Amino acid sequence: MIAEHHDPYASRVGGASELVGRADPVIWGHGPGPLDRSQRARYHRDGYVVVRNLLSPTEVTMLLHEAERRAAAIDPAAPDRDDVVLEPRSRAVRSLFRVHRDQGAFAELAADERLAGAARQLLGDDVYVHQSRINFKPAFEGAPFSWHSDFETWHVEDGMPRMRALSASLLLTENTEHNGPLLVVPGSHMWYVRCAGLTPQDHYKVSLREQHFGSPDPAAITRLSEGVGVASATGPAGTVVFFDCNLLHASAGNVTPFPRHNIFLCYNAVSNRLVEPFGGLPPRPDFLAERSVETLPSARA
Amino acid sequence: MIAEHHDPYASRVGGASELVGRADPVIWGHGPGPLDRSQRARYHRDGYVVVRNLLSPTEVTMLLHEAERRAAAIDPAAPDRDDVVLEPRSRAVRSLFRVHRDQGAFAELAADERLAGAARQLLGDDVYVHQSRINFKPAFEGAPFSWHSDFETWHVEDGMPRMRALSASLLLTENTEHNGPLLVVPGSHMWYVRCAGLTPQDHYKVSLREQHFGSPDPAAITRLSEGVGVASATGPAGTVVFFDCNLLHASAGNVTPFPRHNIFLCYNAVSNRLVEPFGGLPPRPDFLAERSVETLPSARA
Repeated sequence: MIAEHHDPYASRVGGASELVGRADPVIWGHGPGPLDRSQRARYHRDGYVVVRNLLSPTEVTMLLHEAERRAAAIDPAAPDRDDVVLEPRSRAVRSLFRVHRDQGAFAELAADERLAGAARQLLGDDVYVHQSRINFKPAFEGAPFSWHSDFETWHVEDGMPRMRALSASLLLTENTEHNGPLLVVPGSHMWYVRCAGLTPQDHYKVSLREQHFGSPDPAAITRLSEGVGVASATGPAGTVVFFDCNLLHASAGNVTPFPRHNIFLCYNAVSNRLVEPFGGLPPRPDFLAERSVETLPSARA
Repeated sequence: MIAEHHDPYASRVGGASELVGRADPVIWGHGPGPLDRSQRARYHRDGYVVVRNLLSPTEVTMLLHEAERRAAAIDPAAPDRDDVVLEPRSRAVRSLFRVHRDQGAFAELAADERLAGAARQLLGDDVYVHQSRINFKPAFEGAPFSWHSDFETWHVEDGMPRMRALSASLLLTENTEHNGPLLVVPGSHMWYVRCAGLTPQDHYKVSLREQHFGSPDPAAITRLSEGVGVASATGPAGTVVFFDCNLLHASAGNVTPFPRHNIFLCYNAVSNRLVEPFGGLPPRPDFLAERSVETLPSARA
């Protein structure tokens, strides 16, 4: 239990759920970059900021088609590939991982100054892609994601030391209030929810479909949302949502006739590269957590 | 197959899905009542109208407590009661049926002039309660409802002749964009979606949990929502949503920390009382479809 005392973000160490204050800055630098002062202020206060139409309709249409092309190339009858997650029932493609590693459109997107530059600006350091994925939430049947902080998992299962990472979510289709947009608890990034329980081996194999460990206590989520409620990050295709690695987020299922497809690029500061997982188990595979820090092609010279 | 030719609303007769025009008025009378001209115009055009704060906070708090008291009195370990539907996974109470028959608060609510009077006004006739239920959608785990027209089921499985019925949904808790509010396709009440397939015996025993037959074809829902999208019926507790029996509606699951509990009172015109089910199977039980027409205690003298 010594680790619990030295690690401010110890979690799943067998104790009860607990709410503790964040021990890291939210914004790590004040250099120039694509986000203006009011956008940075909103990100600091709420833990996220929505930048509408960051990509042009032409760009986002190309990326949507490329994403659909890759999903269509998956054979649902073939043996499971680790980096492809299917919907539990319909076996439609739910997530494609590590798209930043393929040569082509997604690698270019990951290095795009509008995204990577904003990450560098907020994290005050060079950045690399810790994880990337396309999340497909098909019309009528897209499944929900339950509440979680990315950082809790990245810390416990991947070995990310500090809260110096963020996600950029690019909306490939319009995200409305009703087709399962990203839901957040504004301000929850200032609190760390230590999770109860312990982590089983190879937890990631089930957690990508349904989360059981590393799920914050419902009472903690309720408490953090009191008086604040829950907010959604909506916008037309081409909008990008930047959100802190410790922001509580979730999304409802999609019952509408309108698909909701998003790309997630998770940037980490190079100075915050992964070490041994804090949960003490072997690290998750590379497609979930990049262990070789390669600054992005277009990193500032 | 003769019935198919005589019944404008034949459905599940073994053919393909089909979209046909509504063969009945939406508003059946122009007598006085609680709804003003603009509310009736909206109901006519969109198939629903939201009346905020129709009940006072005191009234709705009392009804919420009564609903919670009744749900808490259900023993989840006891053998299934037909009129109680539990969540598939957690066995939390999802629906309590036929609450208008119990003496007390819900019977009074069903006869309340603000609700029953509006139903009489729109349907141009005395009314009775065809079906009533409390739908509980608990925080974090409330399940979704898939798209359907009430009338399709009421016609095929219960024997309701014409589209001369509506539902009044009373919001017992605030319904926000995010906790699984009623979603509708505005204007879809003007079209009838003939459903494909046939109905198995005792279909209601599974359909209350998960609908498989009498589900409109996704292509029909997509077509009706083109250019219109999907709208939500939200508001504070005490709000009432009146919606036509043939309006396509659904709701997403509730992943938020805020429960969404609503009462549904479905009013039918007495002249539209049930006959033999148009699907040719035995009628569903009384708790789902009232067969003894009793005009409400407070019906106009």
